[in-house]
Amino acid sequence: MYAVILAGGGGTRLWPLSRVARPKPFLPLLGGDSLLQRTVARLSPLVQADDIYLVTDERHGPLVREQLPDVPAANLVLEPVGRNTAAAVALAALIIERPEDEVMLVLPADHRVTDEAALRRALGAAGSLASEGRLVTLGIRATLAETGYGYIVASGAGERREGLPTFTVERFVEKPSPERAEELLAGGRALWNAGIFLWRRDAVREGLRRHAPHVTGPLEEGLAAGRSLAEIYPHVPATSIDYALLEPASVEGAVSVVPADVGWSDVGSWAALLDARAEEGGPRRVVGDGETMDEGSEDVLVHSAGGRLVVTVGLRGTIVVDTPDVVLVCAREQAQDVRRVVDRLVAAKESDHL
Amino acid sequence: MYAVILAGGGGTRLWPLSRVARPKPFLPLLGGDSLLQRTVARLSPLVQADDIYLVTDERHGPLVREQLPDVPAANLVLEPVGRNTAAAVALAALIIERPEDEVMLVLPADHRVTDEAALRRALGAAGSLASEGRLVTLGIRATLAETGYGYIVASGAGERREGLPTFTVERFVEKPSPERAEELLAGGRALWNAGIFLWRRDAVREGLRRHAPHVTGPLEEGLAAGRSLAEIYPHVPATSIDYALLEPASVEGAVSVVPADVGWSDVGSWAALLDARAEEGGPRRVVGDGETMDEGSEDVLVHSAGGRLVVTVGLRGTIVVDTPDVVLVCAREQAQDVRRVVDRLVAAKESDHL
Repeated sequence: MYAVILAGGGGTRLWPLSRVARPKPFLPLLGGDSLLQRTVARLSPLVQADDIYLVTDERHGPLVREQLPDVPAANLVLEPVGRNTAAAVALAALIIERPEDEVMLVLPADHRVTDEAALRRALGAAGSLASEGRLVTLGIRATLAETGYGYIVASGAGERREGLPTFTVERFVEKPSPERAEELLAGGRALWNAGIFLWRRDAVREGLRRHAPHVTGPLEEGLAAGRSLAEIYPHVPATSIDYALLEPASVEGAVSVVPADVGWSDVGSWAALLDARAEEGGPRRVVGDGETMDEGSEDVLVHSAGGRLVVTVGLRGTIVVDTPDVVLVCAREQAQDVRRVVDRLVAAKESDHL
Repeated sequence: MYAVILAGGGGTRLWPLSRVARPKPFLPLLGGDSLLQRTVARLSPLVQADDIYLVTDERHGPLVREQLPDVPAANLVLEPVGRNTAAAVALAALIIERPEDEVMLVLPADHRVTDEAALRRALGAAGSLASEGRLVTLGIRATLAETGYGYIVASGAGERREGLPTFTVERFVEKPSPERAEELLAGGRALWNAGIFLWRRDAVREGLRRHAPHVTGPLEEGLAAGRSLAEIYPHVPATSIDYALLEPASVEGAVSVVPADVGWSDVGSWAALLDARAEEGGPRRVVGDGETMDEGSEDVLVHSAGGRLVVTVGLRGTIVVDTPDVVLVCAREQAQDVRRVVDRLVAAKESDHL
C-alpha cells in the first residue's frame, strides 16, 4: 500500500493562524507536531516514509520538506495552482509510478484522529477490499446532525473483512440542510465522508476516465505531449473527487465503505478545534508560544502565537487567537464567519494579513 | 477659585492600558486628549491654567508637564508615595499658598463629564456656598443601584444658589450592598459622590485638624521642622477625604451638596467605559492606533493600541484591549475582575506587564 496525502492548503476558517504562506496542514493546531506530521506518523507501520507521496501547492514544497525530512523529495507532487481533489487524485494516479494493481490510500493532510490503532485496522480491512478492485471509503459514524460534512449512506448488505463490517455505498449526500441532516442521523445508516479513500491505481484511473474524462483528458493529453504542469494544470476543471468519481461510481454499486470509529475531526474551524481539544479531555485551551492567564472563563480556546500575554476574564464559548499582526476574538457559535473576514480582506487586497 | 486636581494614578481595572508608568488619568480613554487634559479643559473659563494645581505621584510629574504645558511647573505637588485623598487634600491645603478665604475646588483627574456648561454652573453655585465657610460637594443624581460608588443622602431642607437647589448633607454611605443601593435609589434623595469638593482653604484645614488630626499632625509637624516630603509622607495615614473629613463633618451639619446632572461617569472599569461610549451615542467601539474589523458583534468595545489588526466575530458584551505586550479579552459583566488579574501579576512580581 502507498499513501497519497492531499496537502492542498486552505483552512481559511482557521485564519489568522492559517495563512497563505503557512496554511492549516503545516500548523501545530493540536500541539507539538503539525497536522501533516501527525497524519504521516499515524500511518506507521502500515505505510513507511518511502511509500508516502504528497500533492501540495508548489509554494509549500519547502514546508513539506522541512516538516517531513524522511519522505523522499521525489515523492512530492507540486501543483502550480489548486484545482481541487479530483485533479490532485488523477494527477497522482497518472504520474506516481507504482504497480498498476497496488492499493493507493488517499487522505487529507489536516484532519485529526485520536484512535490511531482503530484507523489502521479500518485501513487494513479497506485495503483488502480495494485490492479486489473496489473503490473504498472510510465512513465516520455520524453522531450529530452536522451540516458541514458530506454523508455516506450504506446499504444494508455488508460483509466482514479482517474482523470489520463493510458495506456497499448506496449513495453520497453533499452537505445537507439541517432537516436532511436530522433525517440522515435518524436513519441510523449515515456515516460522515472523511475524504479517506483506498483503491487500486488502475481502478481509480479507469474510474476517473469513465466518470470524469473532463478531468483526466487534459491531464493525460498534456502529459503525453510533454507539456509542463504549469501549462496543463490551470486548464483542468476544479471539482471534488467525491463529485467526479465516488457519487457516479456509487450509483453503479462500485463503492464500498468501512465504518471507522476513530475519534475523527476535520478540525475545520476554531469551534471544531475547541471541540477536538475538549474531547481529548484536556482543558479547553491551546497554548502556543505565549503566556496565558484566565479569571473565571469556561469553554474557551486561546491560541497564543504572538509572544504576548493573553488574558481572558469571565468569557463563555469564545475563541481568542493572537498572532504577531492580527488578534481574532470570535464567538464559538459564529466560528464559520471567520471565512467572511478573510473574504473581506481578499476583496480589499489586504494581503499583509492573509 | 483655584483648583486642586488629584491625579494619583491607579486605574488597575483599566489594565492593560492603564499601567504603573502611565496610569488612567494620562490615557486618551475617550479619544483624543487624556482624561486629565479633558478635566482641565472643562474648568475653563471658570479656572485658568495659572490657578490649577495638581497633586500627583512624583513619577508622573513629567507626564503632567508634557500633557499640561500651560500649567506652571510650580503648581505641581509631587507625592513620594500615594497616601490616598485625605493626605493629598491636607497637603494641598497646607502648602499651596493662596489666600486663606479663597475657595479651593478639589476634583479627580480621571472622570468623564459630558455636560460641561452644567458642571460649571454647579461649581459656581457650590463655590458661592463654600465662600461662606461650608464644606460643599457635588452630587450626581443616582440612576442605578450602583454598588461601586459612595452615596450622599441629602436632607429635605435646601436653599437655592445661583438658580440651583442646594441641600444640607444628612449622611454619606460608603459603597453599599445591592439591597442597600436599591433602598437608597428608591428613597429618591440619593446622589452619587463624585469626589468633587469645594471649600475655603481655611475651612478645609480647620475641618481636617478637627476631624483628622492623625492626618494633618504628621504633615504640619514635619513641614514646620523643615523635613522633606520623602521623610514625612510615608508616615501619614492613608485614608480617604470622604472618611476623614466629610462623614464626620456631615454629622455636625457642616456639609452641603449641589445636585449636578452633568453626564458623569467615573470611567472606573472597561464596562463603565463601554457604557460611557454608548451614552455619547457613538458606536460601542474605541479605536486606538490599530485597525479593527467586525462581523456581527454587538455591545463590544475594542481598544486597539498594539498596532495590530483586531478582528471581532459574533461577540456580545465583550471588551478587547490590545497592547504591545498584553491582550485582554473580558466579558462585560466580569469587568471588575480585571483587578484580580493585576493582583495576581503583582503577587507573581510580573512587573513587565504592570
